[in-house]
Formats: sequence, structure tokens, C-alpha cells
Amino acid sequence: MTQATFRARAQCEALDRNDTLQGFRDRFALPENIIYLDGNSLGALPKATPARIARLVEQEWGGDLIRSWNIHGWANLQQRVGEKIGRLIGARPGETLVADSTSVNLFKLLATAVQLRPERRIILSEASNFPTDLYIAEGLAGFVGRGHQLRALPTDAIEAAIDDDVAVVMLTHVNYRTGRMWDMARITARAHAAGALMLWDLAHSAGAVPLDLAASGVDLAVGCGYKYLNGGPGAPAFLFIAAHLQNLVSPPLSGWFGHENPFAFEPTYRPAPGIACAAVGTPPVISLAALEVGVDLMLAADAHEIRRKSLAQTRMFIDLAGQHLGPYGFTLVSPLEDAQRGSQVCLAHQAAWPIMQALIARGVIGDVRAPDILRFGFAPLYLRYVDVWDAIMQLEHVMQSGAWKEARYQAKAQVT
Amino acid sequence: MTQATFRARAQCEALDRNDTLQGFRDRFALPENIIYLDGNSLGALPKATPARIARLVEQEWGGDLIRSWNIHGWANLQQRVGEKIGRLIGARPGETLVADSTSVNLFKLLATAVQLRPERRIILSEASNFPTDLYIAEGLAGFVGRGHQLRALPTDAIEAAIDDDVAVVMLTHVNYRTGRMWDMARITARAHAAGALMLWDLAHSAGAVPLDLAASGVDLAVGCGYKYLNGGPGAPAFLFIAAHLQNLVSPPLSGWFGHENPFAFEPTYRPAPGIACAAVGTPPVISLAALEVGVDLMLAADAHEIRRKSLAQTRMFIDLAGQHLGPYGFTLVSPLEDAQRGSQVCLAHQAAWPIMQALIARGVIGDVRAPDILRFGFAPLYLRYVDVWDAIMQLEHVMQSGAWKEARYQAKAQVT
Repeated sequence: MTQATFRARAQCEALDRNDTLQGFRDRFALPENIIYLDGNSLGALPKATPARIARLVEQEWGGDLIRSWNIHGWANLQQRVGEKIGRLIGARPGETLVADSTSVNLFKLLATAVQLRPERRIILSEASNFPTDLYIAEGLAGFVGRGHQLRALPTDAIEAAIDDDVAVVMLTHVNYRTGRMWDMARITARAHAAGALMLWDLAHSAGAVPLDLAASGVDLAVGCGYKYLNGGPGAPAFLFIAAHLQNLVSPPLSGWFGHENPFAFEPTYRPAPGIACAAVGTPPVISLAALEVGVDLMLAADAHEIRRKSLAQTRMFIDLAGQHLGPYGFTLVSPLEDAQRGSQVCLAHQAAWPIMQALIARGVIGDVRAPDILRFGFAPLYLRYVDVWDAIMQLEHVMQSGAWKEARYQAKAQVT
Repeated sequence: MTQATFRARAQCEALDRNDTLQGFRDRFALPENIIYLDGNSLGALPKATPARIARLVEQEWGGDLIRSWNIHGWANLQQRVGEKIGRLIGARPGETLVADSTSVNLFKLLATAVQLRPERRIILSEASNFPTDLYIAEGLAGFVGRGHQLRALPTDAIEAAIDDDVAVVMLTHVNYRTGRMWDMARITARAHAAGALMLWDLAHSAGAVPLDLAASGVDLAVGCGYKYLNGGPGAPAFLFIAAHLQNLVSPPLSGWFGHENPFAFEPTYRPAPGIACAAVGTPPVISLAALEVGVDLMLAADAHEIRRKSLAQTRMFIDLAGQHLGPYGFTLVSPLEDAQRGSQVCLAHQAAWPIMQALIARGVIGDVRAPDILRFGFAPLYLRYVDVWDAIMQLEHVMQSGAWKEARYQAKAQVT
């Protein structure tokens, strides 16, 4: 890794002046005096979102009522926003749909995977995967009840464990606790070589790192609308099924919005051709409209510029942490190697929670993952280089002053 | 059935003046010159909703960002709104949760039901049930793959078919095509006598007819947020699990929001105690907040006054249809008997579609269910007696003038 060394805030100001993405920050409604390093948990509010929602609620719902399903295209909203996300993740047209939550989509795709590999019993994943991925796989395996099993292994044991018992390898592309990024094409090829399917969770990737699902030969994927896509709290999630795997088995969750003709009200389920059959119930239109604004904003930016800036910012954060936090007992959790790092940097410290509370009290918002991880997410569309500088200076101040030791930061809150 | 005979609009005006619910109409943003008889498909917009959504989006999401999960109670929103809906349906505290879509909730509860009755193979339902109920049951039975089967029978064959092969009887309390209402307590007792579980779909009941799930001994139920609860397009749905059936089997969709401590990020799933374990993924907060406004409005009204007015209006509609539409070949599909009728009236006519289009062009909005049903829903919180009168007069005009025969009404749209 080569990186510049930052000695003055002025250097960061210069980088901001020359930032090709600088115009995007003004398209977000960011609170004053806050440095937001938690866009990997909940993305910021696009300024265009409130007006879009108000129009949807007041004119479409309030004014045109039931007719909006046709005249405002509500009936097609899952496909329309899905296609747009497909462009962000390198899917071919007709492979991406917005629907339900990431967890429910994981269930659908895992159920499909075990049906597509009926002679295999293992769902292989990382023990450090995001919990809901593991929970859903565990629940599915138990529910199917034919000897299926979730095998959750340490990260460095995954590749060797991909054998001909494995129906599907399920990994999160960028790990939520470490920011470590898998080599998508390589692991996918490994899974295929063993006859397994590959399912990627893109929660911390979509909108943050370049993705090319088609070129990587990915079979199945899910992802989240409310992180780097800035779709709003609990925004609907998305799912991806490669064209050659569509319509081979019946969807386990066969709801009316996945029917070939939902509004014919036929007594028997006939799956819609293509990705549309992964829809289930009536979609949450208001939340979908909010998501579309975030996705449109992301599509307006150059994905490679986003990655370039994200790497510059995470590298700068690591560099400044090295310069300023040396005496205070932090450990770098995220990879130093650019190619292995998503758009977040995590530091371990035994006092992670009170340190983060003291930092938040100073206007720098990251989060904590128990027991000891401080997470900092970098959303290049709205994060400036000076924010990176200021965040480290605040963190240094918190440590130097001992502010984090104050009693009010010691109690543990439920949500961090 | 006893009913008044209506001979003049003035009679309706008098009823409106004396309507104990008249104050509620002004709390909805209804378009001018529209008579909305489709609140059973998409409820109207409460006037308080846009401001609530704007506050959530701009202040909570935009201003407080990730901290809103704690400080604005987002983490508890599914339970909070679920408890309120529980009061509307006669559930005990801790039995109702807002989550996902009706279709996904049906899957969860059917999966739970077949696990609770492992020696039984039949899901019994009506052939005329709402399609997604049948589709989900069919998909679940196929996915379980242990000889489970959906048995969908004609309405009058249901009771006799409840035998000791039946794991669960799944019925929609008020039928979407006919408005016919089951006797909930009686059928539930029939199911229990045969050792089966009883699952009610309350999509056309919640907010429309009095419900007492506790007194009726109901086991499981699902329902819809966007019809009579006025929660907005694709509002999240709700589900009900009677206390004595909670936590007996592991949820098939075991997502992180159903974990006992989601934010501890534990590697193993531990279901939350009680109804909370029926949550799956991150909930759609914006849509949930919109739903809460609709539910609060419904809670402010007296459920028995709603039923009294609903019956008076549906009776009036039937009476006026008899007086004014005699020559035009309509058949009454909905029951004449009050106790068997939900809050809608359906008429059959072979030209249902063009007739409805001509009626909508005159500002009276109902809908059509193929091939021949005209549906009219009655939402007593915002529907006046004069609207009922005017709707029939417009329908008479459409038939008398032959307006429905105009070419522009003949083409069939996708969504009706």
C-alpha cells in the first residue's frame, strides 16, 4: 500500500476542492456540526426525498387513490427500482428486483438454492457473517428438515470447505465487523468448481464498491436499501437471480405479486416469468419511492470515482489513526490492503463503547459492534476529506483528555 | 332484515347530520367530487399522515440519523403499532405484531401451524379465498414436501371437511369478492373440535367489522394495513399468534429482528419471547409510521358505531339498488343478512368492467373482480349517506343512458 502522509487540515481542504464528487454533498440534508461516519448502517437523507414522498402521499395516494397502481406505475415499482439497482451491481437486465427485507430475501434464495441442488445438504458460511444471514440459514435448514445444515466456519477455512456436499456458499461480500472484502470472482469460481451455488450478501457493497455480478458469474445475491443506497430507514431490500437460474424451481414464498397476472385473481399460482416471481406480497410503495430517490442519486455518480475517493478516505483515516492514536491501545481490524477493504474502517479497543459515546457527544457519529469494535463507514457522496481529519482529531481529543472515562458513557445502551 | 326505504336525497342528508361519526370525514384528505367506494382496496389518506411522514423523514431520519432507532423508538415500532391493532381486533396484549406483507405473514403462520400439528397434512381453505392465501399455502405445502396439501373447497363444503387430517383451517373472514362474512367463533370452535388450528385472514375485517379474537378463541390471524386501516399503499401487514401458541416451535423465518437481542449480534438465533419472534428483517420505518396514523384514527372511533353505520350504508345501497337498478340485469352477490355481510356490497353483471369504467368517469370509484363482479366498499369514517345515494343515482344514469357501451370503456386494463 502506498499512501500520502497528512500533516495538516489544509491538505484535506485542497483534496475537497479538487474532489470530482464534491457536488453530491449538497444533495444530502446533513445536520449541522455532525460528521457522519455511519452511512454503512443508515445512509443520509437525500434532499430530494421529502418532496418525492410528499408528492407520492398527497397527490398519488391522496388524490388518485386506487388508480395510482396504474397511472403512477406503483404496480411496476419493484421492477423499475430493481432494474436501476441492477445497473449499480453489474447485473444484466431482468435479474434484480426490490422486495421485502434482506432477511426474507435470504430465505427465498436459500430455499431456491437447496431445491436446485437437491442431493446436497450444506449451506456454507462464515461464522463472522452478519447474524441474520446465519439465523435465516439455520431456520431454513431446520424447517426443511431433511438433514440440511448450516456450516459456519472461520473465514480462512471457507475455501477449503467448499466440497460436493455444499449446496450453496453464502457470504457477505464486505464483512460488517471488519470491512474485509472477499474476492467475489475467485470465490464464486471456487464454488462453481465444486458444483455449488454462490450467494452474495451485498449489504455493505452496493453503492460502496464496484460490483460486476455478471462478470463474476454470481448465481444469487441480496442487498440492503438503507445503507449506501440512502433509501431510508428499513428501506426495502433487493435480490438478484442470474437469468439462467430463473424459473427452474417454484418460489417457496409464492405470493400474488409474483404471479404471472396478479390482477386476474386466478385460483392457482403461476409464477411470473423471470425475476418478477421473486415478489411476494403488496410492496411498501412509500418506502419504495424513497429508495428510488437514493438509487437515482447513486446512479448519477461515477462508481469508479466513488471507489477511488472511498479508498483515499479510508487510507487517510488509517494513516491519521497511526499518527495520532498510537498511544491509546487501538488495533486496526480492517485490512491495510486496498483490494481487501470495503468502504469502512474498524478499530478494536476494549473500551469501544464509552469511547464511541464520547466521540458521538462531540459530533462524530460511528457505531460499535460488541464487544470491542468501533466502526467508521465512509460514504463518498457526502463525506469530505476534512471530515476524516476532524474525526481523527476528535478521537485523539477523546483519548487524550480521558473524556471517555466519564461516568455518563459507561452505561451500555441497547442499540449502539 | 328490516330496513328503511329511501325515497329522497334529503333523507340521506338528515342521516349525515345526525351521524355520530361525522367528525371523522374531515380528518381525511379526500379529492373533490369523488365518491370513494374502494377503501376496501386502498384506504383514503388521513390528513395527519403527510406531516407525520415529513417529521419522520426530515427530523428523525435526516436530523437524528442512526440514533433514531433509540431516541425515536424505531426499534420498537412493530410492537407499538401491533399493540394498537391488537386493540382493534380484540387481541390480548402481546399477541399482535406489524411485520412484512400479508403474504409473508401467511407463510410464517402456516409454517408454524403445520409444525404444531406434525401428524396432519391438510391445509383447508375456500376455493374462493383471496388468491395469495391459496398461492402461499400451495407454495408452502410443496416446499415442505412431506405430503402436505392445500385442500381448497367450495364455501358450503368447508365445515364438513374439517376432520382429523386437517392441520389448519385458513379462511378469510370477509370474502374479497362477495363481502360474505364467516361466523368466526363458530368455525373456530368447529376447527378446535377436530383438533385443527384456526387461521383467519382479517384483510377485509380489521377496521370494518367488530372483532374479538380472544373471545372467539382464534389461534392465528393475519391482516392488512392499507385497506380499512388507512395505512397507505403497501402498508406493512400484521399478524396475531394467541399467547398459548407462542414460542412452541422455532419461527421458520428466523431473522435478526425476531432475535431476543438483535443488537447483541450473537452468532446463534434465540427467538425473542412472545410475539416479537415473528419479526424478521429490518422493518420499513417510513411505511410503519404512516400506518400508525391510520390506526390511531381508527382507535379514536367507536367500533360499534362503525359497524352500525356500515350496516346502515350497505343496507341502504342494497335497498336503493333494488329500487333503481331493477331493469338492468344486476345480481346481488353479497348477503342480505346483516350478520353475514362485511362492509362491502358486490353486484354481478356481465358487463361489469365497462360499467365500472363509466361509473369511475363520473367520479364514483369502486372496482371490478373478474369476470363479472362490481365491488363497492364502505368505509364509515369518511363515507356519507349522501354518497351512497349519489353513487346509486350515477350508476342508474350509466345504465339508463347506455354510457357504459361507449367504445372507450370496452378495452380491458390490467388493474381494475
